[in-house]
Parts: sequence; C-alpha cells; structure tokens
Amino acid sequence: MAEGISLEELQLAARNHGMPLEALRWEITPIGLHYLLTHYDIPAPDPATWRLEVDGLVERPLSLSLEDLRARPAVEIAVTMECAGNGRVHVEPHVASQPWLLEAVGNARWRGTPVAGLLEEAGIADGGRDALFTGLDRGVEGGEEQAYQRSLPLDELLGGEAILAYEINGEPLPPQHGFPLRLLVPGWYGMTSVKWLERITVLDAPFDGYQMRHSYRLRQEEDEEGEPLSRMQVRALMVPPGLPEFLSRTRVVPAGTCTLEGRAWSGQAEVAGVEVSADGGKTWSEAELGDDSLGRWAWRGWRLEWEATPGEHELCCRARDAAGNVQPLESSWNLGGYANNAVQRVSVTVTE
Amino acid sequence: MAEGISLEELQLAARNHGMPLEALRWEITPIGLHYLLTHYDIPAPDPATWRLEVDGLVERPLSLSLEDLRARPAVEIAVTMECAGNGRVHVEPHVASQPWLLEAVGNARWRGTPVAGLLEEAGIADGGRDALFTGLDRGVEGGEEQAYQRSLPLDELLGGEAILAYEINGEPLPPQHGFPLRLLVPGWYGMTSVKWLERITVLDAPFDGYQMRHSYRLRQEEDEEGEPLSRMQVRALMVPPGLPEFLSRTRVVPAGTCTLEGRAWSGQAEVAGVEVSADGGKTWSEAELGDDSLGRWAWRGWRLEWEATPGEHELCCRARDAAGNVQPLESSWNLGGYANNAVQRVSVTVTE
Repeated sequence: MAEGISLEELQLAARNHGMPLEALRWEITPIGLHYLLTHYDIPAPDPATWRLEVDGLVERPLSLSLEDLRARPAVEIAVTMECAGNGRVHVEPHVASQPWLLEAVGNARWRGTPVAGLLEEAGIADGGRDALFTGLDRGVEGGEEQAYQRSLPLDELLGGEAILAYEINGEPLPPQHGFPLRLLVPGWYGMTSVKWLERITVLDAPFDGYQMRHSYRLRQEEDEEGEPLSRMQVRALMVPPGLPEFLSRTRVVPAGTCTLEGRAWSGQAEVAGVEVSADGGKTWSEAELGDDSLGRWAWRGWRLEWEATPGEHELCCRARDAAGNVQPLESSWNLGGYANNAVQRVSVTVTE
Repeated sequence: MAEGISLEELQLAARNHGMPLEALRWEITPIGLHYLLTHYDIPAPDPATWRLEVDGLVERPLSLSLEDLRARPAVEIAVTMECAGNGRVHVEPHVASQPWLLEAVGNARWRGTPVAGLLEEAGIADGGRDALFTGLDRGVEGGEEQAYQRSLPLDELLGGEAILAYEINGEPLPPQHGFPLRLLVPGWYGMTSVKWLERITVLDAPFDGYQMRHSYRLRQEEDEEGEPLSRMQVRALMVPPGLPEFLSRTRVVPAGTCTLEGRAWSGQAEVAGVEVSADGGKTWSEAELGDDSLGRWAWRGWRLEWEATPGEHELCCRARDAAGNVQPLESSWNLGGYANNAVQRVSVTVTE
C-alpha cells in the first residue's frame, strides 16, 4: 500500500469524501454520509431557469423544467452506488488520482422519472444508438476543457431501470448530489450517473469524449483501448468492530461474543452469500444474509457472531454473487486503479 | 508544505471531510457540505431511550428526553464553525493528524435551547465553576480509552449564547452532526461544540481529561502547559475562480472582469474588512463587505471585481477584525498544527 500520498491527492481527498464505514449500520445512508466524487466544482444552477434539453437523433426534441419532470410518472428505488475507483489506494504500484481506501459507497432512496419513458416520448429517430448525458460541471482533465459527459447504449436505457432523479431520501437533491437533476443507473459504478444534468443527446454511436475514451477503462497501458467499466463488482464491507484509535484507526475489541456486521452488493447479479474470516483469510465462516426488502439494486445486510479471543486478529469479509463472482484476496493493478474489489482487512486487538 | 501524507492521515482525510471551497457561495452551508471531524466512530443512539443527564454540583439534577428539550425555550442562530486544525497541512515541519488544507469550515442555522437557561434550572451548587460536556463517542487517543469530553467555565456559559442544538438548517441533526443533541458554542473552534451529548456535569474546576490537557493547546513542546484554544482566529476564504483541473486543482480564468468572492469570520470580534491581492500579497485592494444580516456569529460575504490579465497570478485574501487582528501572510508552527490562519493563496492561469 502506498506510504506517501501527494498534496494533489490530498486536495482531492479533502473535497471528496467517503462514507465512514460505521455508517454501514444504516440501511439507507443519511444525507451527508453517502460518498461523493466531484470531478470539477459543484455547480449552483438556478432552478427557475434550468431546463433539461433532449435533442440529437430524436423525433421530438424536449425542453423540460423541473416541474415538468416532477409531473411525469415517478418511481423510487433504493440504489447502492460505488465509485469505480474505490479501493484504489490498495493497488500497487500506486495510481495517482482520488485516493479512495474502501469508503466510496452509499445506499440511498432515489426518486425520479424513468429515462426509458422520456426517450420514448421524444422518439428515437433513425440511426439513434446511444444517449449522451451532459452535466453542468466543467473543468480541465487530461489537458481538455470539458463538461462532464458520459454516454450509454439506448438498449441499456430502454430496457433498464435508469431514472432521472430529483430526490434523495425524500428530499430535493442537495447541491453536491446533482441538484436539480441527475441520472441514476442502478447497478453501475457511479461515474455513469451524471450529476447536474442539462442535456440528453441521442447519437448514432457511443460518445468518444475524455470520460469514455480515457477514463473509466480497464487497461494496462496508455495506448491500449481496454474495456470500459460498467457494472459494479461484487463486494462486502464490514462495520469495523470495537473502539477506534484516533490517528491509526486500529481497533480494540473486548474478548467474548462480538457481532460482525456489514453490507454486500454486486452490480452483476444478486448477492449469493458472504463469508467472514478472523485469521486473515485462511479459514472462513458463512455469515447470515439479511432480507432483500430494499430490492435488487440495494446492498444486503449480513452478520456473524464471532467469539473474540485475546490477541491480534485480521478480520476479512468476502461476498459472492449469483453469477459466480467472488471477491479476490489480493488487489490487481490497472492503469486507473479501478474496480479493485479485493477483500477488506480489519486488524483488531482483542483484550481480556 | 508536506509532500508526503501518510496512510494514517489519509484514513482520517477519507472519513472526515472539508467543505469544498466553491460552497462558500452558499450563505448557509447545505447539509453534507459542512465540514466534519469525528474523533472516533459516529454513534447511533436510540432517540426513544436517549436522555441528557445534568449532574455534578447542581441543586436539582435533570434527566431530559429529546421531547423535554424541544419543549423548552428555543432559539435559532447562524453560526460559522471551523476546526482548530484548519490549515494544518500548511505548517512546517509537518504535524501528523487530520490533514486539513483550508476547507474545515461551514456555516449553518442551528436551533436549540440555551445552555444558560438549563443550568439556571438545575441550579449551580456551591463551588460549581465549570461544566463538563460528555459525548457518546468513544475511542482511544494518546493511549487513553475515553469518551469525547470538553469543559467550559460557567461564566462563559451563563453569560453567553451557547445552545444545546437539535436541528440544523431546519432539520433534525443528522447522525454525523451529533444526533440527537449537541453543544454549540458560537465563536469558538469546533472542538468545543461536543456532539452526541449525553451528560453535562458541573465541576469545581476545569476538566483535566485528554482533550483539555493534551489536545487543543497552543504549545511548542510536549512538556509545556501551553494555552488552551478557544475562539476562532480571523480568516477570509475565497471561492477559487474559473475552472479547475481535476487532479492538480489549478485554476484557469479567462481574461477580463472576474468577480472574486468569499466569506470572512472571526470568533474574537466583528469582521472589519477584507483585502484582496492578485500578486501574492505584495499589493492589496479593499473588498466590498456584504451585510451582517445573519448576525454576529456567522461569516460575512465579500466581493471584489478583478481585472484579470493574461499570465500567472497568485490570488490572496486577508481579513481583519474589530479587535485589530489581521491574518498573517505566513503560517506559524505549533505542536498540534492549530489555529493557522495564514492567508489563502490561489494560483490561477489567466488565458487570452
């Protein structure tokens, strides 16, 4: 693991924030605890003049106010969202970017109108294949001045559950989550869910901008095309048990029965199980999975009663999904430090 | 400035978060953008069984539910709160702790019941001199297992505007801000405003625990008693203008008139003025101060129209208060890296 984080990376860590892992206790992450990654600055659009434009290869371009959008059919879905860079600090050699440890996750109730219905209303013109989502957030990245922009195949959108969200946990989006409107694509890494949405443009091919062509691809070398990131890898995280030490965050746990608990999710398939190890991954016990009452796109709780004996222990948790994916024990490297779902390791000292 | 931040410090930076400086645009900081420092873990008390105990040298010990507290006289005050460690990363030699740059600040509307009234109701018994505030948050620091605890002189509390707050920005406190109840001491650094309050104990002398005796003191050496930190130093911060580069956070500004704006505050006296420099502090221009409609304990807006000419510029802002305090140009060192209110410096590239 990297021992020296640069000032540039610290600047990002001070702006963007993870969800402290004890907040895994809340099935629905309270506002202010959900992870946040803002590429540029948080915009402050005026909701009175803001419009969502739908244009490009559509039969009927649309220009919609927030009230227009709120008047459309609405759904509310609980969605676990994770940054594609979660776990980046644990890959070697070091990748300089937002230095996430493991906290870049959250689970919220998002309310909005289905993207599919809006695209159907606009009508896809001949040749329409992909939809480009453009945010109001602007900055420079890789030497290119740009708005934050990502595209998705129309097949994914017309057959899927993506929404244009204007509420989180029953409240209007706060500025940092994309006020007044954001895209929300269940099961996908967070980069897909464009915030501060101002435009949806139907194209005849995938968008080729910076955030598609350069960022968010799995590759080993700069000149390699690589594979675009899409759905979240399977992962379990645990609430670190016991008491923390302020600076080191090492944990002290009293001997006896200790409830280990956490949440698990996968964008690829339903969570099939979670195992827990108290010896650094040598032996594993099956945890009890909580119910799936929040639906397919939200994390599931898990718990296991652990008989804590005095001494040093390394606790690990490992999830698997119904598609046969299992978390690896070790991190693997790629150029962007993406999609590192290696098992969490929590060192604890159990006292008499 | 430190070039290498340790993994331990990064762990803190990933948990605790600053207010991204573009959020200075909001007079009242939205929930989720206000800075947060949590020494240990965020507790999750059950509001149905939670009580505030008032004990020690009082004539009538009290045990109050959240409803009891909400039924008491209520006030709402706008308060700017800053961490005593804000600016720590800029002091040299490096101080290893929560690695704040400049973002450890926020301004919120807090609603609650005055501490003075509650203490008067309990009645101070003979010898009562200080009040100890104990939070539900527990951990290990400096080798000592402890709850987070800080005391204040009764003179400060009985004559002051401190409240026991149960709402922020019109909503119940979220978990991370101290649900269900926190102390809020206007004008003081944030360490004073104990979160997740469970007990107020009247003592015959200042509390001598870790957070009083070791932390939050200005001193040059470990064996020095030093001065306890109390009220916030004067400081101005600006919204970094133009567009950011993702990783470096350097700014690009188009040539022409550029509005520089920000906020200024002091816990010592009213803000008397803010100056702005576009040449790294060699020459200064007086900014226009906004009104003080939020009251004495909130920050004040400021703005200045800057004629940006092509080239590299270092923007600075410097506040002064009515007690004659002015921000220094350079950081000064102390053992804890506290109270560093050296002027902010923002490097910008102005393009044609």
